[in-house]
Amino acid sequence: MTPYYTQQIHGPFKTISIGQLDLEEGGVLEDCTLAVATHGQLNAAKDNAILVPTWYSGTSKIMEQVYIGQGRALDPSRYFIIVVNQIGNGLSTSPSNAPSRIAGPRFPRVRIGDDVRAQHRLLTAHFGIQRLALVVGGSMGAQQTYEWAVRYPDMVERAAPIAGTACNTEHDFAFTDTLVEAITTDPGFRDGTYADSAEVAAGLRRHAKLWTVMGWSTEFFRGGRHRVLGFEDMDAFIDQFMTGYFSPMDPNNLLSMAWKWQRGDVSRHTGGDLAQALGRITAKTFVMPISHDMFFPPNDCLAEQQLIPNSEFRPITSIDGHLALFGTDANAVTEIDINLRALLAT
Amino acid sequence: MTPYYTQQIHGPFKTISIGQLDLEEGGVLEDCTLAVATHGQLNAAKDNAILVPTWYSGTSKIMEQVYIGQGRALDPSRYFIIVVNQIGNGLSTSPSNAPSRIAGPRFPRVRIGDDVRAQHRLLTAHFGIQRLALVVGGSMGAQQTYEWAVRYPDMVERAAPIAGTACNTEHDFAFTDTLVEAITTDPGFRDGTYADSAEVAAGLRRHAKLWTVMGWSTEFFRGGRHRVLGFEDMDAFIDQFMTGYFSPMDPNNLLSMAWKWQRGDVSRHTGGDLAQALGRITAKTFVMPISHDMFFPPNDCLAEQQLIPNSEFRPITSIDGHLALFGTDANAVTEIDINLRALLAT
Repeated sequence: MTPYYTQQIHGPFKTISIGQLDLEEGGVLEDCTLAVATHGQLNAAKDNAILVPTWYSGTSKIMEQVYIGQGRALDPSRYFIIVVNQIGNGLSTSPSNAPSRIAGPRFPRVRIGDDVRAQHRLLTAHFGIQRLALVVGGSMGAQQTYEWAVRYPDMVERAAPIAGTACNTEHDFAFTDTLVEAITTDPGFRDGTYADSAEVAAGLRRHAKLWTVMGWSTEFFRGGRHRVLGFEDMDAFIDQFMTGYFSPMDPNNLLSMAWKWQRGDVSRHTGGDLAQALGRITAKTFVMPISHDMFFPPNDCLAEQQLIPNSEFRPITSIDGHLALFGTDANAVTEIDINLRALLAT
Repeated sequence: MTPYYTQQIHGPFKTISIGQLDLEEGGVLEDCTLAVATHGQLNAAKDNAILVPTWYSGTSKIMEQVYIGQGRALDPSRYFIIVVNQIGNGLSTSPSNAPSRIAGPRFPRVRIGDDVRAQHRLLTAHFGIQRLALVVGGSMGAQQTYEWAVRYPDMVERAAPIAGTACNTEHDFAFTDTLVEAITTDPGFRDGTYADSAEVAAGLRRHAKLWTVMGWSTEFFRGGRHRVLGFEDMDAFIDQFMTGYFSPMDPNNLLSMAWKWQRGDVSRHTGGDLAQALGRITAKTFVMPISHDMFFPPNDCLAEQQLIPNSEFRPITSIDGHLALFGTDANAVTEIDINLRALLAT
């Protein structure tokens, strides 16, 4: 549908089929394929594996660019780092690449738990891994990290959820609703039957503007950080950076991920009891919100951290807010690195 | 157009014509009428007048209900309190009540400075007032308060801008854009030519949802304050409270006010030099942001307060965020009262 989801832009990655995945909501992905990027080598003991799931709109590429490298905490010379693209992100099985029967608006509903079960099968069956030195992810990657730590506690030695929650909040759900509505109300969306993302350009631009308002912070703009990043004013920042980022993406992919994001909730495992669910975690866990995050704010994350037995609250300071995850603030990236290094040393 | 803008719902108020108002942007209101609610009596010295301008979507009624009363700082037994509805709010001259030639989408663009000049004429010509003991307003009322203090420094003894700025920020501008787009993208809006607000119900509901996300705070929802206010869940809160509040309003009125809000900027008086503009203020000024405000945040207000000679920074603590202005948090209302009392005692 669009040349955006390619090896040229997001590779190198491998596509690995894990077979049929029966989804929590009742749908089926008959041939669930995960796009996987690995860095480094699995050692003989198979105990140096780090799993990195991806966030809303993100792919394995940005994780590689911002977080992985020699001398970094996620060091391929020491660890076998497996970045798994989430279902629906356009590289793994997604509305934009699924067989016609479930393509586009017919794509079944996928939950965070489905991703984590798919990743579990990939790690155990394909790579023969029984133990993860670390699961680390930001935003929806943090949701998957929490799901891993609660669902497979014996398999996760360490967990580092960054700028995300274990149980999505009502406020965050409403924010995500506004993202969804920005897209679905575009007449060009045509209930998901558009022929090309360009037909939904207006909706994608409104979606990008909402991300501008909530993704960074008031301090970011007051400090002129958007100009520091090379955009002469707010319009240029919205048009070139934010809209430029989102506009090549497939709207149905974004909506599939948004639906999943809204419903991230580990308390599904314990009949709605979040304390009990988080109490299951045995991983050494560093909870790392970002100081100026407007929709996964530190206090929402702190409330959860206090329910996790072997955990520490390690907030990252950045006026870049949630989208400091993009790596725009070098100090924040360094802070994350220092924390991950400390966590891996435990 | 709609029975919402009536004496029954928003009265009592008087409508007072101030004659022709030539607008900053070049338009004209030939017979500019201000809806005015007064409380108390003007004394013989005419030095006990307090001016209260209104905020986006608000009218004189909520100011009366939440902020004015015997024993309060704004005490009608001591002060002559004049609440002036802003142009475009549906009670004063507005798209919804203007003569056909400038009605609805044909309504000319109005700026904060136009409101303040109109109010100045009302106070001097109609009431014979040359000096104001206090100008106090929240949100767009704060924008008008700043405009008063900069434009007519000799007339304003005290100023209390609550939860608003003297120069609107780029972030706030973008947020307001999302409000505007929620309305204008509704096919029922028909470029402003809808026959009734009900035809724009979907757009007004999206507009209400954006207010839900940005108007309160993440702490508000985490603390279950929406349930404390009597709504069983987020959907009920959005449908009944937020959408219920906005849905009877006229979309063109809201858009007229939004355009004005986005462009509030006292530095127009000094060629863009905000420090010079705020340096003109001679009023004793209490700058009162609300702690959890997501779009007029304390630090944006602090940066301005530091440029005002005879001012104090007096933040109000409330997890209700910007919409604590509604009076939902009794402690915040009390804090505002205490500050206004202290200001009036200077």
